This record gives sequence, structure tokens and C-alpha cells, in this order.
Amino acid sequence: MIYFDNSATTKPDPNVLDSFIKVTQDFYGNPSSMHDLGKNAETLLRKAREQIANLLSVSNDEIIFTSGGTEGNNLAIKGIALQHQARGKHIITTQVEHPSVLLACEALEELGFQVTYLPVDNYGRISIEELENSITNETILVSVMYVNNEIGTIQPIEEIAAITNKYPKLFFHVDAVQAYGKIPINLNIDGIDFSTLSGHKIHGLKGTGLLYIKNGTILFPLLHGGGQEMKVRSGTENVAGIVALAKAMRIQLDHLNEDQKSLVEMKSELLRAIEKIDGTVVNTPTENAAPHIINFSIPRLKPEVVIHALEEHGIYISTKSACASKSPDKSSVLVACQKNDEVSRSGLRISLAYSNTLEEIKYFNQKLALVVNQLRKGIR
Amino acid sequence: MIYFDNSATTKPDPNVLDSFIKVTQDFYGNPSSMHDLGKNAETLLRKAREQIANLLSVSNDEIIFTSGGTEGNNLAIKGIALQHQARGKHIITTQVEHPSVLLACEALEELGFQVTYLPVDNYGRISIEELENSITNETILVSVMYVNNEIGTIQPIEEIAAITNKYPKLFFHVDAVQAYGKIPINLNIDGIDFSTLSGHKIHGLKGTGLLYIKNGTILFPLLHGGGQEMKVRSGTENVAGIVALAKAMRIQLDHLNEDQKSLVEMKSELLRAIEKIDGTVVNTPTENAAPHIINFSIPRLKPEVVIHALEEHGIYISTKSACASKSPDKSSVLVACQKNDEVSRSGLRISLAYSNTLEEIKYFNQKLALVVNQLRKGIR
Ligand SMILES: Cc1ncc(COP(=O)(O)O)c(C=O)c1O
Ligand SMILES: Cc1ncc(COP(=O)(O)O)c(C=O)c1O
Repeated sequence: MIYFDNSATTKPDPNVLDSFIKVTQDFYGNPSSMHDLGKNAETLLRKAREQIANLLSVSNDEIIFTSGGTEGNNLAIKGIALQHQARGKHIITTQVEHPSVLLACEALEELGFQVTYLPVDNYGRISIEELENSITNETILVSVMYVNNEIGTIQPIEEIAAITNKYPKLFFHVDAVQAYGKIPINLNIDGIDFSTLSGHKIHGLKGTGLLYIKNGTILFPLLHGGGQEMKVRSGTENVAGIVALAKAMRIQLDHLNEDQKSLVEMKSELLRAIEKIDGTVVNTPTENAAPHIINFSIPRLKPEVVIHALEEHGIYISTKSACASKSPDKSSVLVACQKNDEVSRSGLRISLAYSNTLEEIKYFNQKLALVVNQLRKGIR
Repeated sequence: MIYFDNSATTKPDPNVLDSFIKVTQDFYGNPSSMHDLGKNAETLLRKAREQIANLLSVSNDEIIFTSGGTEGNNLAIKGIALQHQARGKHIITTQVEHPSVLLACEALEELGFQVTYLPVDNYGRISIEELENSITNETILVSVMYVNNEIGTIQPIEEIAAITNKYPKLFFHVDAVQAYGKIPINLNIDGIDFSTLSGHKIHGLKGTGLLYIKNGTILFPLLHGGGQEMKVRSGTENVAGIVALAKAMRIQLDHLNEDQKSLVEMKSELLRAIEKIDGTVVNTPTENAAPHIINFSIPRLKPEVVIHALEEHGIYISTKSACASKSPDKSSVLVACQKNDEVSRSGLRISLAYSNTLEEIKYFNQKLALVVNQLRKGIR
């Protein structure tokens, strides 16, 4: 089996699962309990938080554990909106965000907020000038993703931070779900207030994630209750999942440092082969793009047909993002990039992980050429 | 080790953990992915939902998976409030709810809602008349827990449902976290619209739970995004956790049917011994109480001192609920039951599971008498 759908979800690392099992079996106490079983669980939780804070070069109390990327994005966006609405009710985001950002913003529109959805260029990038021009007296939040989950574009996060940093009442949230461990990122810079990570995208477990919150900025919690996670996110802590997240993050970062080159090499090899196939359009930009996502279109071939044909060779890729169910045929990201209808309808996404190999790429390239050929000849 | 803190959290059942491991290893696909790995995960998810719907005698599309009890309670309460505020902005709950209900309601007060916190009698029960008298034209939600987590009181849920059922615009939410599998409950009755369950309280995993939503009643989601869980709760599904929840629920229900008697027997044995100790006050009611929670006070002995003394004998019990951190010394539940200051300050909670045995109870009874004796004599 060749799994190239790592932006949808990844195979959990066996070491991550082992951590989860060990904690579940031996440290099942409630961290809030007064006795030793509780205290031992609490110690593990504290250590996981410290490890993660170290990996991200931030403070321990800036890490809030969540159930995943969707919760992190919703917590940051709604949390700022509901808490700070007296300051203003305008939010700026982009047209190419993940649905968990786009639909959280649309929901806030129902509650009386105004949202600017910035357009992007052909490569999926926003314009810094346009962003700065959109800021009004009413703007309280800017939310821009680090790496786009469909085409891999890297947004100019540090430049945005330099701008948001100039406006003291403006918060800046970065959805870094597809960036962590894939490109070098630095969240601890002036101007970035929040950043979302998700466990299952980095060989961790589903149901785990975190929101980085700079200097304990006050948010309206989505989950009120026992006051866990600095009162920002109540609920009995998933200690085993959190320890597993710390493990996944460390492993992923080790890979970033060691294997960055191999991802880049695999991507070039893929692009070389894809471009050789007559009529294909590569949607992933050549510059400012993450090394693990390759998006391309084969006009006039239905993407689901290509996917199922590749599946018969044991290869798993995807069309648009797994959760972009809004537009059943066209990719809204490709539409935002001003791709024509045919290209927007026929996008395919390959998303790699460090566990993938050059041999897999070569096998894939061969099968892709074969499958396209057969489909075009009407053999399949 | 004798673990009597099962209302704080339970030891996960090895079969539950096995299900989690198997799904994590072999079915890691994203249920939203188009290929077979996705479809296989989706099939597992659907089966787990069916199994759970069967256990609860409700429909498949009435089950929304969450990250736990706190999320379920917040989703029901805030979801109704934000979605249906045009109908009215008044909520009725009780003074003895779990913090995840109480603080969700207090947060809504900040957003302009009115909340009535019903008082309770000496046994922790609300008055049906008082509840009915509190309903106004503005009331949109009643939220009452099934079983109190500190003292075990069972609220008159079916009688409340009979009332809420008479008011068509009134929703009724039941926090059943401490009830499921401990007492026979029927959620599928007219008048009940929502019910919250949590996995880690029934030998399942932390980070898992569900909200039962009758007939797909529309809620304002806390988590917007990819549209998972009938659009009520977006986020990549924790399939392994959900399958583990189904397993835990089945096991727990089997125990309810088989071992109900043994819990009742253990409780009587405990009460007999506790009452023999001079000066103890039993806070758990004799009638209308769940069989797994026994709350008592030993006036003038600091509960944390008793807890640590018992711990030296390998026994784990608790004071008030693990997450009731609001009032550092008095239990707000005991205060609501009009217990005097000394009793409210010295509450101890024993919470049992089916895995506990009569031998453990006997050992505990002996050690409790010993410890109290030593502490009173100042020997410890
Ligand atoms: C960029 C981005 N943000 C957020 C999410 C949501 O993360 P999760 O699936 O953990 O809810 C995803 C993945 O679905 C994503 O790719
Ligand atoms: C009655 C009750 N409701 C809700 C909760 C919250 O559940 P969870 O710990 O899964 O968030 C608890 C336990 O803490 C509880 O006892």
C-alpha cells in the first residue's frame, strides 16, 4: 500500500500509540484528583506541556490542549470575537482557509460580525497590501493559515505579523495545522497571538491538538466547566492523548530537521513525471510552497475515477481536502486561485509524509501515466 | 490498590483499550476520504453509531460524538441558547449541577441571558412545583442532571420531562454522565431533548463522549468546519475513540443488568460501617440515590487528611468532585443541601464501579475506622 493522503490524516506512529497505551493503563487518574493517582497523572500532563512548550519555544502556560485542529481554530476565532466584541466586530481572513476557519467566520456573521475574505493570487497567496488596506477601526482579528491544505501555498506569515503587530487591538491567529513539522516555523514572534496544531496530521492520534495562546490572552471559552487548561478549555484532560501528542510533535520535528531534503526530492520527482503527462496542470506553486503537498489537475478526467483507478494499484491519493464538502465538484481553493472551471473540477492532491520513499514515488509515477493513458483511451 | 474514586474517572477496560488500538493501527483513514481507507473508517464509525443508538433505543442520527461530558453539556446549553435566543433568553437549571453546566450558564448570563438556579432539599432534590413555577414565556431551556456526581441523588427526570413536554418551545437537557450504566435510564421519552454521556466515567477513554439530540433539533455548533456529525460537531472524527466508546457502553450496560445487586450490597455494607463511626453524617440520601456514590462527613477532620491517611493503606477516595475547584473548602453541593458549615467542609466521597468487591469494602471499612480513631487521638 502506498499512502499519499497524509494531509487528510496520517498513520499514527507506533511509538505514539505506545505512549498512549502506557499512560491509559498506568496513569488513568483524573489530574484534578487529590490523591497520588491524580497527582501522577497531573505530573505527566505538566511534563507533556513543558516538552511541547520547549519544542515551540513558548511558555508552558501558553499551551492549551484541544480535541484537534477544528476546535483550536474555532476557539481562537469565536473566543476572540465573543470576548472582545466591544472593541469592534470586524474580522479579516482569506478565501482559501480550511472550513473550520471559514465556517466559524460565517457563523459569526450570523451573530452580527463583519468578515472580509481576502482574495488570493494564482498561487493561492494573499496580498500584504490588500490585508493592510482591509484593517479598519473595527478590526479585532486576522486569521490566516500557514500552509494551505489543498495546494501547499505558504502564506507570508511573518510579514502579516509585522503588520498586525503595529495595531495593538488586533489579534492574529495562524492555522499551522499543515505547517508544523513540514516547514520550519516560528510561532513565538511579535504579532502572532494564536496558532492551531492538530495531532492526527503529524502521526499523532485523532482527537488531540493544541492552541498556542500568547501571554494568556483572554478568550471566551467554548467549553466552560471545571477550569482545566488555565480555565480556557474545561473538561477532564485526555492525559494519554496529550502525552501522545508531545511524542508525535517531537518525532515530527526530528524528521523536519533530518529529512527535509528527502521530501523536496520526492516532490521534484513527482512534478517531473506529472508535467510529462500531456495536458496536466500543476496547481501547487513552485515557490513559497510546502514540500509535502502536490496538487495538479488532469482536465476532462473525473478526479474520483482517477482515484479509484490508482486504488486498484494500492495507491491512495485524494481530490480536494477531505472536509471541503461545500462545493461537490469544484475546489473552492482552486476557484479562488482563478483556475478555470475544468481545472477547478479535476484537482488531485498528493500529500506526503516522511515515511514515504522515492521508490513509492517511482511506482506511483509509472501507474499514474498508465492509468491516465487507459482512461483517455477509454480502456477503463 | 483499592480504587473508590470512579466518579472522578475510571480505569479503562482492557477490551476498550484493545478496540482503540486495533482501530488506530488498522483503520486510520479519514472517514471523509474518498478512497477505501476512508470508507472503511467511515463504516466503522457508522457501526459504532448504530450500536450506541441501539443501546440507547434512539435513532442513529440522534447521536453526536464529542470529546467528553463537558463538551456535551456546553454544546447542548450554549447551542440552544445561541440558536433559539429569538424565542426567549431564560434558562432554568439547578444549584447542584456539574461546573460544566453551571459555568456554561454563567457564561450565558454574560451574553445577556437570565438563568434560574433552582434550590434543592436536604437530599439534593429539586422541587417539581418550583421548577414549573419558574417557567416563563421567555424560558427556552431546562437543564437538570440525572445523578448528582457528589452525593448520588437521582433527580425526578421523568416528572420533569412530563412538564417540559407540555411547553412546545421549551427544550430539556439531561446531564446523564453519572447515570448511564449505573441506574436504568430511558432517554427516549417525550420531553427529553438532549442528554450528555462521557466515556471516561464508564471505563472508556478520556476525550470521548456523546450528546444525544432528539430528532436532530437544531443547535448553534460550538465547532464549525467540515460538517462532520450532521454538521453539529465538525472536526476529523476520533474513530478509534468512538469505537472504544461503543465498546465501553455495551460492557457497562451488561454490568448494569447483571451486577446491579452487588453495587447495592457494597453500598449498604459501607453505610453500615460509616454510621457506626461516632459523629459521621451521611450526606447521600437513602432513597432516590444511585448505588455507586456514598458521600459522608466526619466533622472536625480535614477531608484531605483522611484521604491521605487512607492512601497509606492503598485506598483512593475523594473529597468533593474532582473539578469543583470554585470553593476551596466547602462543597457547594452540600451547601445547597443546607448542610451546616462543618459538614459542608468535611465531605468525603466514595464512588464505586462494578470491578469493586465486597472484600475491598470490608478492608476499607476496617481501615476507615482505624484512621478516624488515630486521627482523633492525634496519633497521626
Ligand atoms: C489547514 C487545516 N486546518 C484545520 C484542520 C482541521 O483539523 P482537525 O481535523 O484536527 O479538526 C485541517 C484538517 O482537516 C487542516 O488541513
Ligand atoms: C455529572 C457530570 N457532568 C459532566 C462531567 C464532565 O465530564 P468530562 O469529565 O467528560 O468532561 C462530569 C465529570 O467530570 C460529571 O460528573
